[in-house]
Amino acid sequence: MRKVGIIGMGHVGSAIAHALVQEGTFDEYVLIDTKVEKVRAEALDLEDALANQNGSYKITVNDYAALDDADLVISALGHIALQYNSVSKDRFTELPYNVEQVQKVATQLKKTSFAGVLVVITNPCDAISAFYQKETGYPVERVIGTGTLLDTARMRAAAGQAFAVSPKSVAGYNLGEHGNTQFTAWSTGSVMGQPALQMAEAAGVDLAEIEKASIVRGNDVFDAKGYTSYGIAAAAVRLAKVIVSDAHEELPVSHYQEAFGTYLSTPAIVGRQGIVAESSWTLSSDEKEKLAASAKSISEKFSEVVGNE
Amino acid sequence: MRKVGIIGMGHVGSAIAHALVQEGTFDEYVLIDTKVEKVRAEALDLEDALANQNGSYKITVNDYAALDDADLVISALGHIALQYNSVSKDRFTELPYNVEQVQKVATQLKKTSFAGVLVVITNPCDAISAFYQKETGYPVERVIGTGTLLDTARMRAAAGQAFAVSPKSVAGYNLGEHGNTQFTAWSTGSVMGQPALQMAEAAGVDLAEIEKASIVRGNDVFDAKGYTSYGIAAAAVRLAKVIVSDAHEELPVSHYQEAFGTYLSTPAIVGRQGIVAESSWTLSSDEKEKLAASAKSISEKFSEVVGNE
Amino acid sequence: MRKVGIIGMGHVGSAIAHALVQEGTFDEYVLIDTKVEKVRAEALDLEDALANQNGSYKITVNDYAALDDADLVISALGHIALQYNSVSKDRFTELPYNVEQVQKVATQLKKTSFAGVLVVITNPCDAISAFYQKETGYPVERVIGTGTLLDTARMRAAAGQAFAVSPKSVAGYNLGEHGNTQFTAWSTGSVMGQPALQMAEAAGVDLAEIEKASIVRGNDVFDAKGYTSYGIAAAAVRLAKVIVSDAHEELPVSHYQEAFGTYLSTPAIVGRQGIVAESSWTLSSDEKEKLAASAKSISEKFSEVVGNE
Amino acid sequence: MRKVGIIGMGHVGSAIAHALVQEGTFDEYVLIDTKVEKVRAEALDLEDALANQNGSYKITVNDYAALDDADLVISALGHIALQYNSVSKDRFTELPYNVEQVQKVATQLKKTSFAGVLVVITNPCDAISAFYQKETGYPVERVIGTGTLLDTARMRAAAGQAFAVSPKSVAGYNLGEHGNTQFTAWSTGSVMGQPALQMAEAAGVDLAEIEKASIVRGNDVFDAKGYTSYGIAAAAVRLAKVIVSDAHEELPVSHYQEAFGTYLSTPAIVGRQGIVAESSWTLSSDEKEKLAASAKSISEKFSEVVGNE
Repeated sequence: MRKVGIIGMGHVGSAIAHALVQEGTFDEYVLIDTKVEKVRAEALDLEDALANQNGSYKITVNDYAALDDADLVISALGHIALQYNSVSKDRFTELPYNVEQVQKVATQLKKTSFAGVLVVITNPCDAISAFYQKETGYPVERVIGTGTLLDTARMRAAAGQAFAVSPKSVAGYNLGEHGNTQFTAWSTGSVMGQPALQMAEAAGVDLAEIEKASIVRGNDVFDAKGYTSYGIAAAAVRLAKVIVSDAHEELPVSHYQEAFGTYLSTPAIVGRQGIVAESSWTLSSDEKEKLAASAKSISEKFSEVVGNE
Repeated sequence: MRKVGIIGMGHVGSAIAHALVQEGTFDEYVLIDTKVEKVRAEALDLEDALANQNGSYKITVNDYAALDDADLVISALGHIALQYNSVSKDRFTELPYNVEQVQKVATQLKKTSFAGVLVVITNPCDAISAFYQKETGYPVERVIGTGTLLDTARMRAAAGQAFAVSPKSVAGYNLGEHGNTQFTAWSTGSVMGQPALQMAEAAGVDLAEIEKASIVRGNDVFDAKGYTSYGIAAAAVRLAKVIVSDAHEELPVSHYQEAFGTYLSTPAIVGRQGIVAESSWTLSSDEKEKLAASAKSISEKFSEVVGNE
Repeated sequence: MRKVGIIGMGHVGSAIAHALVQEGTFDEYVLIDTKVEKVRAEALDLEDALANQNGSYKITVNDYAALDDADLVISALGHIALQYNSVSKDRFTELPYNVEQVQKVATQLKKTSFAGVLVVITNPCDAISAFYQKETGYPVERVIGTGTLLDTARMRAAAGQAFAVSPKSVAGYNLGEHGNTQFTAWSTGSVMGQPALQMAEAAGVDLAEIEKASIVRGNDVFDAKGYTSYGIAAAAVRLAKVIVSDAHEELPVSHYQEAFGTYLSTPAIVGRQGIVAESSWTLSSDEKEKLAASAKSISEKFSEVVGNE
Repeated sequence: MRKVGIIGMGHVGSAIAHALVQEGTFDEYVLIDTKVEKVRAEALDLEDALANQNGSYKITVNDYAALDDADLVISALGHIALQYNSVSKDRFTELPYNVEQVQKVATQLKKTSFAGVLVVITNPCDAISAFYQKETGYPVERVIGTGTLLDTARMRAAAGQAFAVSPKSVAGYNLGEHGNTQFTAWSTGSVMGQPALQMAEAAGVDLAEIEKASIVRGNDVFDAKGYTSYGIAAAAVRLAKVIVSDAHEELPVSHYQEAFGTYLSTPAIVGRQGIVAESSWTLSSDEKEKLAASAKSISEKFSEVVGNE
């Protein structure tokens, strides 16, 4: 049977739980949040859905021991404001809060015999993924950040619109930090099976605009609804399904890379054991520089995280 | 192709849209809200999910004309506070607001050639369903309130827990108003295929507690998370699927009943034309009285609604 | 993760595997058949579907050891001709074959550490379920026959047509043998929430016709297409999902009943441990007699089965 | 609402119907076959599944008029033997039969007001697609053959195995005839986002073996089970969903290309209007020659088809 834990039942954690129960993806859910009444209310609200849904499932609330046999645990905790990078928002205001929470969660997780994959959404995603790995001592391949899986989906949505095709007919990835230093690796991107650079020239499409959109789209959502939830939930749901079905699918997720000494997003092969292989991606020299710069930015954030420990 | 409109993209409308796109149920969505930036943000957030989801769909924002060929339209607008009935909450504070909004929506709908089913969640659900029907002039069978479909799911969840079975192995309905005067019609209810009254006696289960839970469960959710969304979303999603697939399934939904001269929830057969047949339900004399009292309460609310016109 | 074994990849086993992979229900499939080339071909054909499907899954062929950690195993082996009971067909011609195969399968299963639920479709379903239990020594609650779950679906389809409602708005069960001695327990059946007997009288519907249809419908399918597959596959898929999600849903399945000293179908609560509770069904005295007669017929068949051992 | 017609309810047409009803994809099905008893039996068998499935749907049998408002019609008719190309099988033995059937179907279709997309599986797929277009007079963009969508899935399955990744992490297409003259366009193929040619060299994988497997895999399935069904059903189901949801997804399907004066498979953008745009694929000069040769082979087959008219 399939079992998932979700830690942090704010807008994002709740949207993930809702999507998963609606699809009937998992058989058991362990929902954890420090706001005891809130997480109980979310569980009740989900249970009120059961009689009108197709599948069946069980929900356990605030019980770390129930994670012993979970296939994966998703950390969705955090203060929303951290998620965005626009100049006007100081995204580190609440870093001490997130760091403190992650430490507490890691302490609890270590008391369990959980041996699945830890998926990290909590921001700053790359640095917090690294921090979770450090605090839990889990093997690096079993701690994965959603990273640029979301930004890549945004890039594909924007490119799909520009080229009048489905986002699913756009290939390529946003790489690096889930934050301002990320970039779209156009050298390996493609639209309808053809090189993106070539397609853009032929169609008069400005790729820089698409890249920018992939990074700032979230801000537009954030500014108008106060948080983002459905895009990130879909990214986490897809990652969860790839893990539990051991799909060995390539996804741009945040994982530890020895060459950079840090977590960052590049495509990797994901399965039930977490990162099961590294993709052999090639980049242009310009992109290599951007990736190195992005890795540096993540390392600095990780230092801030550790400094707040 | 399947097309749905959702009017009111607050917590409930958004949760419905999210559930539907995650399942891939509809091909086209028309999302409408007076908060222009908000509804655009929800649409963007959903589009950011597309590349990581299975299905494909199109979203149109704030365009009533796009409803011309919709299979159904769901009214999820309204102020949340109206949804609950606990003594401490004055659920009619915002009635004038909802009435005004419904009038505006009805005016817009009448300008379209929409010929599908109008599903009403907006509270007070029964009175507003009646008001929508009056304002649009649509045939009564094509205007349906979600009514006690949600309360029934809550009853089944509570009964399932009490009898240690799936909510899907509990039959029977909450009838009457989607509000305090509703009741569980135990005389026709069953648990695991046996009469509920008999089962309760044998197992020492207090049905009154279950009935109460079905009515107040929502308050617990509301108090802790500030609104309810997943339970009602699942009810609306199920109703939407029954309508578009012309399932002729029996559901306890709010619909016009000549015998009472008002909308109220009793089981009816639902299909693509809305209410396609009345179920031939029988009640105990006690239940008949409760239903009449509930109908009276709805009529009074309808008067208030019309008075606020 | 979810894992299922299917033993016997004829028309029925293959249709079950196809339905499950199309839905993405399980993560791993173990397909077993004595026709080595045939089962490999089915696996290849399913793998050729993967790139065009939503989910991911792995298929293992003819490896009993792979069942060690399976959630359930479905026995779909058997000669098709055994499935039907019409006078013109001698359904026991191939009994010796099925008995021999079941013995071989049981011997293999006992060598594994499989601790899930064994679902039996192989006919004669009730007697073979009992025989599987005897041969494997598994606890009776973990060996379940699909029994009249299929016949009940046929009854609901026929009743749905007669009353112009969805089969899902028909309640009640066919009980007893998955064969000619079964019957529809109309005393507890209902249509649109009302007693079936009362509804039938009001609507001028002949319930005897519906009951007969539920038993002979399969013959019509069999005569024209040479086998039946989709109805039984849907029954098995539903049962599989109820088991793996531990739904505790009431289903009319064949299970051991001490009162009769044999396997037969009456409603029971099904979960991850198999039969988790007996439903407290009540029958009219006429129905009680029919059930006893049906149990006797099954016992006789079981004797034939054991005689062929 | 979504409506599909399936013409030809043999192994392939039935597997498509089964997959679609299990998923709940369409609301109405029109099943057509000259074997009247057989198609009625398939419909009955599917209806016997309904009570145990999630969704609802209606089935109409052998009624061309019911196709008036269908979103798409799938031609799955044909003699199985035509599907394969191995030297030992004379795939044209039954060509006269298929041609005659297609003419009859086209005559019936022209009497309806069907204005959706005609999807052709019937073999030889490319020539029969062209023949359907000629006989119905439908715009070329509304008649599409499944073409190499199946062969591409087989190539991805084989490549996934060779590179130990999900078939979904393999990009690129088989082009040309759905038959022996097709080829894998490795110049634009990729594995895990990197050029396939480069990946193959690095990993010591023989792409020629994969290409060969993509073409002959079907024969292995055919030889052992007597037909192929699940791979082709998944291809048709995916194409059906892309059409009804107007996904504008790029798929390698058989469509008319003016440059070649014939139908053949190259990637194209597919939506509710059928082929909505041509992909701007580039090929190596070697691949261009292969494509031209494949187009020539198709043209010859089309001549044979027309000659059998």
